[in-house]
Amino acid sequence: MMIMRIELHKIPQARPDDVAGLDQRIAEGKLDPSMIVAILGKTEGNGCVNDFTRGFATQTLKAYLGQHLGPEAGAEIVYIMSGGTEGVLSPHLNVFTRQPDAPEHSPRWGLVMGTGRTRDFTAAEVGSLTMVETVAAAVTAAIAKANLTPENVHFVQIKCPLVTAAKGAHQSSSYQSMAHSRGAAALGVALALGELPPSQMHPGVVGQALDLYSRTASTSAGGELQNCEILVLGNADHSTSDLVIGHDVMHHALDIAALHRAIASTHCPMEQVVSVFAKAEADPSGQLLGCRHTMLDDSDISHTRMARAVVGAALASVVQDPMIYVSGGSEHQGPPGGGPVAVIASSH
Amino acid sequence: MMIMRIELHKIPQARPDDVAGLDQRIAEGKLDPSMIVAILGKTEGNGCVNDFTRGFATQTLKAYLGQHLGPEAGAEIVYIMSGGTEGVLSPHLNVFTRQPDAPEHSPRWGLVMGTGRTRDFTAAEVGSLTMVETVAAAVTAAIAKANLTPENVHFVQIKCPLVTAAKGAHQSSSYQSMAHSRGAAALGVALALGELPPSQMHPGVVGQALDLYSRTASTSAGGELQNCEILVLGNADHSTSDLVIGHDVMHHALDIAALHRAIASTHCPMEQVVSVFAKAEADPSGQLLGCRHTMLDDSDISHTRMARAVVGAALASVVQDPMIYVSGGSEHQGPPGGGPVAVIASSH
Amino acid sequence: MMIMRIELHKIPQARPDDVAGLDQRIAEGKLDPSMIVAILGKTEGNGCVNDFTRGFATQTLKAYLGQHLGPEAGAEIVYIMSGGTEGVLSPHLNVFTRQPDAPEHSPRWGLVMGTGRTRDFTAAEVGSLTMVETVAAAVTAAIAKANLTPENVHFVQIKCPLVTAAKGAHQSSSYQSMAHSRGAAALGVALALGELPPSQMHPGVVGQALDLYSRTASTSAGGELQNCEILVLGNADHSTSDLVIGHDVMHHALDIAALHRAIASTHCPMEQVVSVFAKAEADPSGQLLGCRHTMLDDSDISHTRMARAVVGAALASVVQDPMIYVSGGSEHQGPPGGGPVAVIASSH
Amino acid sequence: MMIMRIELHKIPQARPDDVAGLDQRIAEGKLDPSMIVAILGKTEGNGCVNDFTRGFATQTLKAYLGQHLGPEAGAEIVYIMSGGTEGVLSPHLNVFTRQPDAPEHSPRWGLVMGTGRTRDFTAAEVGSLTMVETVAAAVTAAIAKANLTPENVHFVQIKCPLVTAAKGAHQSSSYQSMAHSRGAAALGVALALGELPPSQMHPGVVGQALDLYSRTASTSAGGELQNCEILVLGNADHSTSDLVIGHDVMHHALDIAALHRAIASTHCPMEQVVSVFAKAEADPSGQLLGCRHTMLDDSDISHTRMARAVVGAALASVVQDPMIYVSGGSEHQGPPGGGPVAVIASSH
Repeated sequence: MMIMRIELHKIPQARPDDVAGLDQRIAEGKLDPSMIVAILGKTEGNGCVNDFTRGFATQTLKAYLGQHLGPEAGAEIVYIMSGGTEGVLSPHLNVFTRQPDAPEHSPRWGLVMGTGRTRDFTAAEVGSLTMVETVAAAVTAAIAKANLTPENVHFVQIKCPLVTAAKGAHQSSSYQSMAHSRGAAALGVALALGELPPSQMHPGVVGQALDLYSRTASTSAGGELQNCEILVLGNADHSTSDLVIGHDVMHHALDIAALHRAIASTHCPMEQVVSVFAKAEADPSGQLLGCRHTMLDDSDISHTRMARAVVGAALASVVQDPMIYVSGGSEHQGPPGGGPVAVIASSH
Repeated sequence: MMIMRIELHKIPQARPDDVAGLDQRIAEGKLDPSMIVAILGKTEGNGCVNDFTRGFATQTLKAYLGQHLGPEAGAEIVYIMSGGTEGVLSPHLNVFTRQPDAPEHSPRWGLVMGTGRTRDFTAAEVGSLTMVETVAAAVTAAIAKANLTPENVHFVQIKCPLVTAAKGAHQSSSYQSMAHSRGAAALGVALALGELPPSQMHPGVVGQALDLYSRTASTSAGGELQNCEILVLGNADHSTSDLVIGHDVMHHALDIAALHRAIASTHCPMEQVVSVFAKAEADPSGQLLGCRHTMLDDSDISHTRMARAVVGAALASVVQDPMIYVSGGSEHQGPPGGGPVAVIASSH
Repeated sequence: MMIMRIELHKIPQARPDDVAGLDQRIAEGKLDPSMIVAILGKTEGNGCVNDFTRGFATQTLKAYLGQHLGPEAGAEIVYIMSGGTEGVLSPHLNVFTRQPDAPEHSPRWGLVMGTGRTRDFTAAEVGSLTMVETVAAAVTAAIAKANLTPENVHFVQIKCPLVTAAKGAHQSSSYQSMAHSRGAAALGVALALGELPPSQMHPGVVGQALDLYSRTASTSAGGELQNCEILVLGNADHSTSDLVIGHDVMHHALDIAALHRAIASTHCPMEQVVSVFAKAEADPSGQLLGCRHTMLDDSDISHTRMARAVVGAALASVVQDPMIYVSGGSEHQGPPGGGPVAVIASSH
Repeated sequence: MMIMRIELHKIPQARPDDVAGLDQRIAEGKLDPSMIVAILGKTEGNGCVNDFTRGFATQTLKAYLGQHLGPEAGAEIVYIMSGGTEGVLSPHLNVFTRQPDAPEHSPRWGLVMGTGRTRDFTAAEVGSLTMVETVAAAVTAAIAKANLTPENVHFVQIKCPLVTAAKGAHQSSSYQSMAHSRGAAALGVALALGELPPSQMHPGVVGQALDLYSRTASTSAGGELQNCEILVLGNADHSTSDLVIGHDVMHHALDIAALHRAIASTHCPMEQVVSVFAKAEADPSGQLLGCRHTMLDDSDISHTRMARAVVGAALASVVQDPMIYVSGGSEHQGPPGGGPVAVIASSH
């Protein structure tokens, strides 16, 4: 097996179509565009239905990298843009590269990754058991491709589709379709990782049985794609990366103890944290730590936007870094009101 | 039967707790507070779940009129505050008075009114068939009280409850509960007026069979009450009011022909229009006159707020008066995307 | 002088990056891409500072037309995207083509057009007298290029830059910079058309002396450019277009009489109206037709968004077509609270 | 000098007009309404111009306490309602009581308080140097009344007026008037406490010289009053309260080290923290910890709302209590982007 070294370049963006930072790293020889495997970004739209910053960033990156790599190679990369940088969250790209390593680097425990894609889903399939199973199969394939084992997977990021008013026949709310898409993709991850048994996956579970959840999935919906794009991150002993990943589960929006546990699980000190990846949602009970919150009853600001602001601020205050990845809507991703949190740290 | 004369005082408000205009009319002897039967107001909140301007205005009016009339008499009045004055809509109160008329005024065709109240509803009953039937009975009683016949009823305004996150056990959205509450109340009106037969009222119709609708109901939900408050307006030949009412149904948000027909039905010229009362909603098809609209996919502004702005502007541009009553959310009130429109005009 | 025929293709968009309608017309031979001079679009962002739908649409169109015409030719076209389709307004593109006409078509009174561009402006110049004068010179040049005379110009559309928090040193509000940019561009038009004398243009006039205005300018700010892009439309007797343009000035947001006058000035009946172009703003007095409006005090919805919804609904209700161009922020474009309205109609 | 004992009752509210929690404490004899000196509340409006939850809560409390104490006594209490409970912040009342203490309690170091009021300000005076000086005099008087010395004052909360579109002649933005009102009141506190010398107070300083600030002031604007209401909290050795107060200054929105220092300054452990009081604003530089934030460029959500969500989440995550007081708009209250943070803890 060829030894592949994973690197993560965290690059700020001034706008969704800003490639200046990426361009500079490439021009300076710090980043080889042909080694890019996946780009996971936070863009500054509303993160909900009519957020076009996701598609704008993706279109821009594809065109830019297409110039470097040719259109086909540029399109091979997995682009996962998550909208919504409410509060302190700072728009940025996480560019993952995978390159053959120098032979003198001996393999050791560290970050490895895999990617995958499902077929396109129809509007009717979004949020269905079919979607759950199709995602599970693709995640399993991505894990295998990375020579990972399910128990060492710490983060599975999926970009999934949504159904807008124009596409959906009888939908009451296009936001609801985002929730079901995210939920089905997350259950697919749980199935692939063995977090939940197939016996628990029956029609009607998506969006309803919210006590069934993955501790590892982070799913994000957008109108700019019809299929699912998958990014799997874990640790393996054949890595030569300087990076290592850990994760835990937040039980509520202010559960910063979970972040401390996730950092501890990387066996790296706080100062070596490179980035944090987390999910956020307004607690559906309307309460948090025994106190009423008003996010669900605010008809002027989407609760998803507020949830990202809250979790983003709480986690960023711990690591003192607002350039982290917090994505909204954690249906079947962690317990209701909570969500998975993953940490990538530099091992030296 | 005693002859009762209905008058309508349209009074601007500078804030939800502004009673200066009302106070001035009372002080000048133009309005006898003991004759107030109902106050139908537009307040400047978001008109959705967390709109407290409705309750604030009602509390203020009750306290003010309680000082004039005693707490019990002040509480007898029907207060219906509808939130949301988006766009050009101007916050105001429609104060309806009913007073014994001078004997020299001979009865003639004109405005009469009735009021009513239902019992409180539980959270589970909001939006149910029980609510439909309970409202129907109360509307029928209010019509009878006014010596009206159903075919001469032109406007039935109902204030109905909603379920907030704090009250509802498993609700995904408190806004949804507003829609179901409005819909059930509207179907109650349709039942009472014979617009729809009892045979069509079965569980599951509320919020689903939107082709079943009243042409006369205007219902508005708010968290400040648990029961329904009802105001019935129509014409009868025992009236001595200078006012007359007419109505029609808008088939879409820009259907100003319906307003012209409603005005025509009063047999009064445009210049004698006193006020307009209408319902508004974003067309659930996502289209209007064959063109896509974006109201349902905008995750930053509630479509109800936008629908009020649209219908308010279209109707106000016809009568060149922004101080009209346009209320959002027209489930089972007119066809999908449309809604009833009523006109009160002065007959001389 | 070569006879050039102007055509206008009004094409709906399903998303900011939707070129399917344009592509279909080109594929069917109905529209020759090499003849496109300008594209004036309404996109579905918030129309304010962080509206990236304008840039996304422009980037998409440039890439698409670049494939047809080569990158240079694609970039030559004037792209003016105006964000904000609040209420009933329907996202669409107005594609203007100019082509050599068949010799058998004899010239007659009808639509002609010119385009232009200024140099880039620095952040400090945005909203300055320098910007006013630079725009005026470019508008004058565009008028000359079109063989138009100022008195026959009916619509001058300008896309102008804005200053974001990232770019501006001491700005209290990036929205304010949009207003000053639009205002300066509009005064440039007024200067070029002789609507206002140079003597009235002194530092401090922009954004302050709002009684100084153009009756013809429509300016729209966006973060996606640093210069001004100019589109001039008018009538001349050397046209062979089937189209003719007229305009008037709305004195308030519900001034539909102005639209009727603008239609009348085209000498075409209502049924032959092809499109309407108008500016909108919330009346800065806080009043409309003597009634208080709440748009300026609503801290949850930008007054510009509401103003577009209002004027869009009022104008669309007259022509019964929601696919019209209404752009927000009419500083120095028409009197405070009003704005220019132009109509393009088909002369047969 | 009579020994007075300060108590703080933290009472959740289910709505702005909810007095059930207060009523229960009074009914159970735990809180003597005649001893209430001040009520400092967080209500669930947008905290900006059209937030009527502040006035609604105040009106409700005055009416409720007026029934207990008589209208005059009820009106004597200082009511300071701060709007905006974005994110996890939970609506609640901080009810401060001051009562003669039992003679066996010997005085010791602990919480004391003073209150005050200024005269009404005209619209022109809001944000002026006159306002600064008038506030300073009233704060000085309140400090004296409490037998406090300026150096032992830890928190001065002021409710100040704003100017709405209806009241202001030529204002471009009513939100701006909130900022200037808050800033002038804060500079008044700085003057009274000797944090800034009178020589630095000249016309033009308000809203401009933001490096001049109080480390102690917390000011909040609202349309429901024309004067300033003042609440001063500090420690003195003549207290018999179980409570003690400390404070520090946050230098940015994620500066939780300041909260830890403020807690330490009370000499009480974390578990004995009763409540936290802080100010929040979006960093006017557009950056936080070297990263771009998007709060100032988001035209759909007021940056003040987002800033409260951020600071609320960061501070609440430390004390694991979302029922804290975070108020938006910290002009001249702490350095730009930061703000004072005060902690009240129980000394045993």
